[in-house]
Amino acid sequence: MMETKLYEGKAKIIYPGPEADTVRVYFKDDATAFNGAKRGTIQGKGAVNNQVSAALFAYLEAHGVRTHFVRQLGEREMLVRRVEIVPLEVIVRYRAAGSFSKRYGIEEGTPLRTPLVEFCLKNDALNDPPISGEAAVALGLATPKEVETLRREALRVGALLKDLFARQGLELVDFKLEFGRTSDGALVLADEISPDTVRLWEVGTGERMDKDRFRRDLGGVEEAYQEVLKRVRAATQAEPQ
Amino acid sequence: MMETKLYEGKAKIIYPGPEADTVRVYFKDDATAFNGAKRGTIQGKGAVNNQVSAALFAYLEAHGVRTHFVRQLGEREMLVRRVEIVPLEVIVRYRAAGSFSKRYGIEEGTPLRTPLVEFCLKNDALNDPPISGEAAVALGLATPKEVETLRREALRVGALLKDLFARQGLELVDFKLEFGRTSDGALVLADEISPDTVRLWEVGTGERMDKDRFRRDLGGVEEAYQEVLKRVRAATQAEPQ
Repeated sequence: MMETKLYEGKAKIIYPGPEADTVRVYFKDDATAFNGAKRGTIQGKGAVNNQVSAALFAYLEAHGVRTHFVRQLGEREMLVRRVEIVPLEVIVRYRAAGSFSKRYGIEEGTPLRTPLVEFCLKNDALNDPPISGEAAVALGLATPKEVETLRREALRVGALLKDLFARQGLELVDFKLEFGRTSDGALVLADEISPDTVRLWEVGTGERMDKDRFRRDLGGVEEAYQEVLKRVRAATQAEPQ
Repeated sequence: MMETKLYEGKAKIIYPGPEADTVRVYFKDDATAFNGAKRGTIQGKGAVNNQVSAALFAYLEAHGVRTHFVRQLGEREMLVRRVEIVPLEVIVRYRAAGSFSKRYGIEEGTPLRTPLVEFCLKNDALNDPPISGEAAVALGLATPKEVETLRREALRVGALLKDLFARQGLELVDFKLEFGRTSDGALVLADEISPDTVRLWEVGTGERMDKDRFRRDLGGVEEAYQEVLKRVRAATQAEPQ
């Protein structure tokens, strides 16, 4: 019997959850880059991203960050609260890299003077254009208070993740978050946190340990994803709960 | 004898000024659009833009806005203080139009919930990409205090211009400003304010009275520029000084 899909995206499928106000998230091995222009499969990615996300959501919850995460359901699935996704990608950057480097002509790796929060409008047809918090308010996508919450929570999550990865010899260069509104109107961290959405460089060598291995055909993609899972497990299991 | 040019841009030439710390700005008839992809000539544009800019700078100065303007020198030239241009375009929007409409897929004319200040990085090779105030700080293009000054001054200029144009039956839809640092480090309004940099719609009919007539091949380009000059003269001459 085919299960009803509530939604299928590029990397995940959403199914109805067993409890009220919940949904199940299934993580696929499908990989896309450059807004779908490049497509492929990363063997075992779904399992890695589910388990990395589950471990990181639990870590963040333990440090006071509200997330949609309820519990892991299996290798490739997690149970989360049902939320209405805010149509803004929230990006935190510590060094110039990727689209930011290209957009502003800044060499990849250039440190930024301050951690930087950026927003992009979630809209594939428009290529997820960058948008200021003020413009997001002017277009009615979020209230000024919500924009402030997104900014503050993103920086807080960044500080916690930067610390966790540093303990495992990985430098957090930038990452993308998505947030959702719960049925009672709260803003909580949602989507995923994985090598698909986080840029990680090996301390010392600068070796890429994230989706850039796929985007840039660097090889060793599966190995890098597995290695990140291993280190996230080590870091979160060592955490005092 | 060829005069020494200090700088030649798409619409203006800068010559040394007769007084210390000043330069002369010569306004050309050359017109470009879409970052130079479209080129042409608008007969009399240089004279209109010089005179409109001179009248508007004088009007803004009379209302407490610091500008680079010293005095008009002739039909096509003005004397201004020498400044180092801040590499940010400062755009104020009241309705979605032009590149903003296209970037976010918002119908042209849609009113914005609040007047919106946007920044773009001044860089032709990169196509003047939008940049947040925070990113401008992170890249060392301006201090946080300067970004706040740009934002505040742009909104103040907008309120004054909106009022002036409304008295002449024109709706100010959006406009672009540039600012410069004087030798003593002050931020002052610079560049020009003209139908090249201001989007004006005839109240009632919505007829375009600005460079969109050139960008979109609407005809009557020269006539619209002359009409704007006439109305700016009427508005500024009626001003109590």
